[in-house]
Amino acid sequence: MAGLVRVCEPPSAALAMFVRKVGPEAAWQGVLSRRGPRAVLAATAARTQSLTVEALTKRAQDDLILAATMGARLVGPDDEGWPAAAVEAFEGALARGVRGAGPPIALYVRGRSLTDLPQHGVTIVGSRASSAYGQRVAGEMANELAHRDFTVISGAAFGIDTAAHRAALHAARSADEYGTNGNPPGRLSPAPVTLAVLACGIDRAYPEANRALLDEIGRVGAVVTEYPPGTTPARHRFLVRNRLIAAFGAATVVVEAGRRSGTLSTAAAAEQLGRLVMAVPGPVTSAMSVGCHLLLADRFAQLVTGADDVLAALGRLPTRQAPASDAESTPGADPRHPTDGLDLESARVYDAFPTFEACTVDDLVAESGLSAQQVLGSLAMLDLHGLAVKEGTLWRRLQPTNIHPI
Amino acid sequence: MAGLVRVCEPPSAALAMFVRKVGPEAAWQGVLSRRGPRAVLAATAARTQSLTVEALTKRAQDDLILAATMGARLVGPDDEGWPAAAVEAFEGALARGVRGAGPPIALYVRGRSLTDLPQHGVTIVGSRASSAYGQRVAGEMANELAHRDFTVISGAAFGIDTAAHRAALHAARSADEYGTNGNPPGRLSPAPVTLAVLACGIDRAYPEANRALLDEIGRVGAVVTEYPPGTTPARHRFLVRNRLIAAFGAATVVVEAGRRSGTLSTAAAAEQLGRLVMAVPGPVTSAMSVGCHLLLADRFAQLVTGADDVLAALGRLPTRQAPASDAESTPGADPRHPTDGLDLESARVYDAFPTFEACTVDDLVAESGLSAQQVLGSLAMLDLHGLAVKEGTLWRRLQPTNIHPI
Repeated sequence: MAGLVRVCEPPSAALAMFVRKVGPEAAWQGVLSRRGPRAVLAATAARTQSLTVEALTKRAQDDLILAATMGARLVGPDDEGWPAAAVEAFEGALARGVRGAGPPIALYVRGRSLTDLPQHGVTIVGSRASSAYGQRVAGEMANELAHRDFTVISGAAFGIDTAAHRAALHAARSADEYGTNGNPPGRLSPAPVTLAVLACGIDRAYPEANRALLDEIGRVGAVVTEYPPGTTPARHRFLVRNRLIAAFGAATVVVEAGRRSGTLSTAAAAEQLGRLVMAVPGPVTSAMSVGCHLLLADRFAQLVTGADDVLAALGRLPTRQAPASDAESTPGADPRHPTDGLDLESARVYDAFPTFEACTVDDLVAESGLSAQQVLGSLAMLDLHGLAVKEGTLWRRLQPTNIHPI
Repeated sequence: MAGLVRVCEPPSAALAMFVRKVGPEAAWQGVLSRRGPRAVLAATAARTQSLTVEALTKRAQDDLILAATMGARLVGPDDEGWPAAAVEAFEGALARGVRGAGPPIALYVRGRSLTDLPQHGVTIVGSRASSAYGQRVAGEMANELAHRDFTVISGAAFGIDTAAHRAALHAARSADEYGTNGNPPGRLSPAPVTLAVLACGIDRAYPEANRALLDEIGRVGAVVTEYPPGTTPARHRFLVRNRLIAAFGAATVVVEAGRRSGTLSTAAAAEQLGRLVMAVPGPVTSAMSVGCHLLLADRFAQLVTGADDVLAALGRLPTRQAPASDAESTPGADPRHPTDGLDLESARVYDAFPTFEACTVDDLVAESGLSAQQVLGSLAMLDLHGLAVKEGTLWRRLQPTNIHPI
């Protein structure tokens, strides 16, 4: 597998399908002997033509050795820990004619197994140039999801990615120390608490300033890449990598994104892979929320304000209470008003009372515009709720409040 | 008409239809003599039964006199200045079985004619307990809409309403002084720059602190109410009034609203009247944006970030550029990158260059994973764009930039 990963720039649907069909060993021999489907030979020509079989074999062995020194292993479709469920999405996308939807040939993995994904994974992405607001929202969301045994997937970039990874790691430390949701200390899920997907070799740290973060993710969570060791983080690889970030999560949440942010490519990939796309709104005065608002305005993404919304949209939690669509005809819009829960007529009668004095039923009839019969019925209702009391022939309102309009 | 407005608490579809059928004079005589449709007699019973015909007639005359002292006139369906187009929506809603969709019988109006509404009106509403953010967004939106000769409709409450009215008035003063959009000074539209719809008599100021604001709106814009003079702003009247606020605008924009804000009733009314409903997102950390986010999450409202979005959704401006849905397969997500606009292969070749040194075509083939033919084609493309140059047998990248991932 190491050789196959080495000789082809991802994504290559042709090589992935070839490996699936004939197995990795036969595929590797086919590439070396230049026998196989034309598309496979074309995809691997550039990196095989100037090297001998021996040189190619040696490089593949060196890759595995270098990966091992990093504590990483190469995982292919037939290996323990292959994220089969996550990768399945690519086949569906290819069948629908999505361009660039080639699945990974194999993955270098540092850390825990990926087999629980995407079922228990949520991708959180956003701008590198994030605001304090975005980092706070990403951090709270990631922390909460990690506490609920979800894997937080991101790309280890500055800004939102870093905030999400860090908060998930924090949740893991907290769970190890104190337990979660009444459970004893120690994280329950065998899945990684957070997963960083790289656009370079597993031996590289990009950005360099996140090297320590990546090391911790590799210990506590998982770091993966489809690129062989030594691969540099070239620009186009971030776009290619983004499809994996999207594939590993059941949903992709865009926390902050500028108008033309590359983060939007992750959202596009998620949609093409059949994953849910979500976006967090922010101040309309913030350039860092423009991309999110575009996704929401076009209804490309579902609006979420936090982890609960994400889980609700995934069907893992009851949905939030929607605003009453018939609010116009009910006076109960403010929970603090004494007539909440009463019918509209009783509320009208309650409002028709003078603030301090007692009054007659006729007064209430004239002020409310209701019939005497309606007023009497409403007074009985108000009496029942302790909101009005009869004093001889007069009625008085109880718990008088100031006018409290909408 | 003044008598009819006096004897019935709005909304009353029955009385409105009766007036429409037989005319206001015959309807008034019918109510006084207690002859007419049963629903009309029921709706007017409470306020007619204890008063003589003379007393009722006198009160109606007093109403008109009091209104006149405020500079207000009573406008009915047959009168000049009646907002026929705005009121039409109620008939449609009644036909669809919407409860509480009775049109106004007549309107007390201070200020300009309402006949351009809702075609040139936008309703801006929101919480009284608004944030500085919400007031800023409401103000900028209202100012921009007023500058484009739209009427800004609201309810004169504290918070968002006040911010919207004030900003529209500011736009009017600015237009009077300096002109707008290259036009000479003086506002072009005969429609009011802003319209306040009251839940009390035209002689009342609610909240009292907004009396000066309402006076200015009455001079420069318009203030209307369906309630007779002296009517107090009882709680249920705000809910009833909200249907008029919604009816006068082609769209209703909710700028800020708490989870159970009464503002949501205006949004519900707008939807029931067939108006567009829009909401402004805000920080998910703000309680004042929760209602907006609920409207957006349920796709009950269209997300807007400012006046341009409102006008675009109304079809008055070209829509904003949507995010490219195929961003995954294009490297042009960041406008500042030199390979923007190039094909993916050329971008890959550009990225495959060493940063400072020249290199061979074979180096580029190995690094990019593309065929020699593809690399040569891409080099020609890069040469054409001034991004690479041939030096003997080597190629060198021009305008070298640091790696600039997504």
